[in-house]
Amino acid sequence: MLKKKEKKTSKKLGLEVEKDEYSEWYTQAVIKADLVDYSSVSGCQILKPSAYAIWEKIKEETDKRFKKLGIKNVYFPLFIPESLLKKEESHLKGFSPEVAWVTEAGKRKLQERLAIRPTSETAMYTSYSKWIRSWRDLPLKYNQWNNVVRWEFKHPILLIRPREFLWNEGHTCFATEKEALIEEKQILGIYNEILRDYLAIAGFVSRKTESEKFAGAEFTKAIECLLPNGRVVQGPDFHHDGQIFAKAFDIKFLNKQGKEEYVWQNTWAITTRMIGIMLAIHGDNKGLIIPPRVAPVQIVIIPILFEKTKEKVLKKAKELKKNLKFRTFLDNRKEYSPGYKFHDWEMKGIPLRIEIGPKDLVKNQIIAVRRDTGKKEIVRTKDMNDKIKKILDDIHKNLLKKSEDMLKKGTTKVKNMAELTKAIKNKKLTVSEWCGNEKCEDWIKTKTQGAKIIGINEKAKARGKCVYCGKKAKHIIWIAKSY
Amino acid sequence: MLKKKEKKTSKKLGLEVEKDEYSEWYTQAVIKADLVDYSSVSGCQILKPSAYAIWEKIKEETDKRFKKLGIKNVYFPLFIPESLLKKEESHLKGFSPEVAWVTEAGKRKLQERLAIRPTSETAMYTSYSKWIRSWRDLPLKYNQWNNVVRWEFKHPILLIRPREFLWNEGHTCFATEKEALIEEKQILGIYNEILRDYLAIAGFVSRKTESEKFAGAEFTKAIECLLPNGRVVQGPDFHHDGQIFAKAFDIKFLNKQGKEEYVWQNTWAITTRMIGIMLAIHGDNKGLIIPPRVAPVQIVIIPILFEKTKEKVLKKAKELKKNLKFRTFLDNRKEYSPGYKFHDWEMKGIPLRIEIGPKDLVKNQIIAVRRDTGKKEIVRTKDMNDKIKKILDDIHKNLLKKSEDMLKKGTTKVKNMAELTKAIKNKKLTVSEWCGNEKCEDWIKTKTQGAKIIGINEKAKARGKCVYCGKKAKHIIWIAKSY
Repeated sequence: MLKKKEKKTSKKLGLEVEKDEYSEWYTQAVIKADLVDYSSVSGCQILKPSAYAIWEKIKEETDKRFKKLGIKNVYFPLFIPESLLKKEESHLKGFSPEVAWVTEAGKRKLQERLAIRPTSETAMYTSYSKWIRSWRDLPLKYNQWNNVVRWEFKHPILLIRPREFLWNEGHTCFATEKEALIEEKQILGIYNEILRDYLAIAGFVSRKTESEKFAGAEFTKAIECLLPNGRVVQGPDFHHDGQIFAKAFDIKFLNKQGKEEYVWQNTWAITTRMIGIMLAIHGDNKGLIIPPRVAPVQIVIIPILFEKTKEKVLKKAKELKKNLKFRTFLDNRKEYSPGYKFHDWEMKGIPLRIEIGPKDLVKNQIIAVRRDTGKKEIVRTKDMNDKIKKILDDIHKNLLKKSEDMLKKGTTKVKNMAELTKAIKNKKLTVSEWCGNEKCEDWIKTKTQGAKIIGINEKAKARGKCVYCGKKAKHIIWIAKSY
Repeated sequence: MLKKKEKKTSKKLGLEVEKDEYSEWYTQAVIKADLVDYSSVSGCQILKPSAYAIWEKIKEETDKRFKKLGIKNVYFPLFIPESLLKKEESHLKGFSPEVAWVTEAGKRKLQERLAIRPTSETAMYTSYSKWIRSWRDLPLKYNQWNNVVRWEFKHPILLIRPREFLWNEGHTCFATEKEALIEEKQILGIYNEILRDYLAIAGFVSRKTESEKFAGAEFTKAIECLLPNGRVVQGPDFHHDGQIFAKAFDIKFLNKQGKEEYVWQNTWAITTRMIGIMLAIHGDNKGLIIPPRVAPVQIVIIPILFEKTKEKVLKKAKELKKNLKFRTFLDNRKEYSPGYKFHDWEMKGIPLRIEIGPKDLVKNQIIAVRRDTGKKEIVRTKDMNDKIKKILDDIHKNLLKKSEDMLKKGTTKVKNMAELTKAIKNKKLTVSEWCGNEKCEDWIKTKTQGAKIIGINEKAKARGKCVYCGKKAKHIIWIAKSY
């Protein structure tokens, strides 16, 4: 809770709600900070410059790591003919409720409906079956960075659940199952690095249950993230498709012995949703906090201007901007007071503020104020770059630590349905055990009014009883409400 | 023309036609070189890794320059409601014949048809009118890198005229016409740099006639490129919209005097079509030639392997790959002869081949063979990086020079319709004069069976008579067949 005085201040400028009222806080925070906006199409969002710059950073760092693994980027068409989408039954079933269909072009009706890609398995694998002939063509590791559409009829949420989003979709083929499974560690490793080292997010890896896995996969693993409202959001994921699509799309190769075999496949993705998760996790009552490594602006300089010393201070501020080796913005707007600017940039989540006034000028110093802790520090101008690097790194570490703590504090063990329903009401992520029966999974959903098995913790062994039926458990599971 | 012996060779491996049979040559060359492929949707193409890597390079270099101008990237939705597209009349008229329409989502009919963006003026400007309030919000300079769909009913051509392509679309707003017009030079300057310094293409800047300008613009300028078949393709373009869209979308700001004014706007684009133009211009009977600065692989090393010295040579080849400061691929496939590999990589257009055999090993040298001239050069291993940098730069210069020569040789002056129709039959780009009357423009199209006024040369002054009607001319114009 906030002290009364702070409360007032935070309401006066910027956000009109506190983070406790999470949904309203989130929407206000991301819109007022100028990151996203609604568009003329319901459920479709606009990524404004700051949000898009964060996405560019995520993309750049992820793509660099993909390329080191020999993964190559390609571009496949936006449209997928209906007949192709139908080729793998469970895939069609999974996606058809939310497909947007093109039926007309110019003044003509199309002979066949075209799906706007919700994902590109069916388009890409049609080509893969033409391109792959022998073991020499394997592994084939392609990826695309593009836009996809999933016409959700649930309430859309900016960044977290829009109807169109940007992502990477990796689609790889291997000669053996073993090779395909090695990729799991590589890809989830990359995604985990992006989350921890750039977005300052602590997630946890779950293996999806059969009913929750990707439509057409053998298994799905995902890095799950806990939001402040106790809901879990699925972050980047990895699907091992085994030979399911290979058989549906006839992707075969001649092995070294000259025999035909089906390939083994994986698909994996990270999306613009991660921006929303990141903002939701780190923000506070004052607004957003953007982790420094992805922040489009890492430092904002605010000169403290008095009539007499104005010119000198402004000159110094410009000099600072030039000499700082970080993404720096100088706010020299004359029509606003320093206090207004402080709040404005706090709301926008800029990780570090630098104040410079006439006294600092004389002392060859600047005042650095952290967005995450509010702590002020006097920094000598001559070694400011080294010092600020350390502060920014420390902000990152602190945000990650807070995210870890939030996850830990938000998680609770439960043994039976009474404990489970109570914990869910209290907006907790729960850990319990499960017998593996799908009926129990369904009952859990019903009894908790919509919480679900987020996934299985493969790193832990079940020793107790199923949280629902009380029979011997097979899996340690997470249950929570989710998006 | 080719000498007979060369002819035979070029047909045996790789392409089955020569560049004289341009259309067939082009399609074979880009497909056999593994750059693009057809997809399951008619007119929509697949960009394979090499083509996409070229696009990434174009994007990277262009985007870097945009950012230096303070242009920021954003992302707007793929969908545009029909009612929005209708807001600017000439814009609607220009695009509606080739719009793909989404009419259904999941199992429901949509209440309003959604256009797949053919371009995003109408979507973006709706938001601009919300976002722009005062002179402090100007200039607003946003850009997006995305996919657009134009459902052409003309014969689609890989890369040059597909139904979906990738591009940048810049959309900027200024307080004054003067500022908006300054941007013309900046943006066309960037595009020209990309064409000349990276794609090694010599184009020419034309101002479109009223009937050919962008639907909704005050004027359109484009860098036009001449293909080997005498057809002109429009490359990157710049549209000055004046206040046309600003009035249709009510994009107003309060000026410093507190008075409301409409903004002045520009839009500009470069597309994946440039890859096709580049390949069409530089290729020869052996296949493609990719200019070194955008080539995903700049050098291919082909070791010459004999039984006895095999290990040593392979080891050296690997060492070379490691030490070369260029994008290098080592072709150590055992199942193919060096000769086969030479042809394979020539077809794919890799700018430089390095051969290394047992004799070279002893002499501490490599053989460098240029794709553009076929010239062989002995290079000492110890200063190979410096030497190869020079060779690659020289290849670039040579390709650009050839492109300039091709443009010069392909252009011819004509004075009347007899000369014009003859020149068009001979696949020439023509320069002539025009009175400015649209009726003459139409007649030119009819009489030449489809050639059109590509545009006006603003750098030259008309002194003679209209090529069609013989009256006093106003403009120097280019006429040619086009795509």
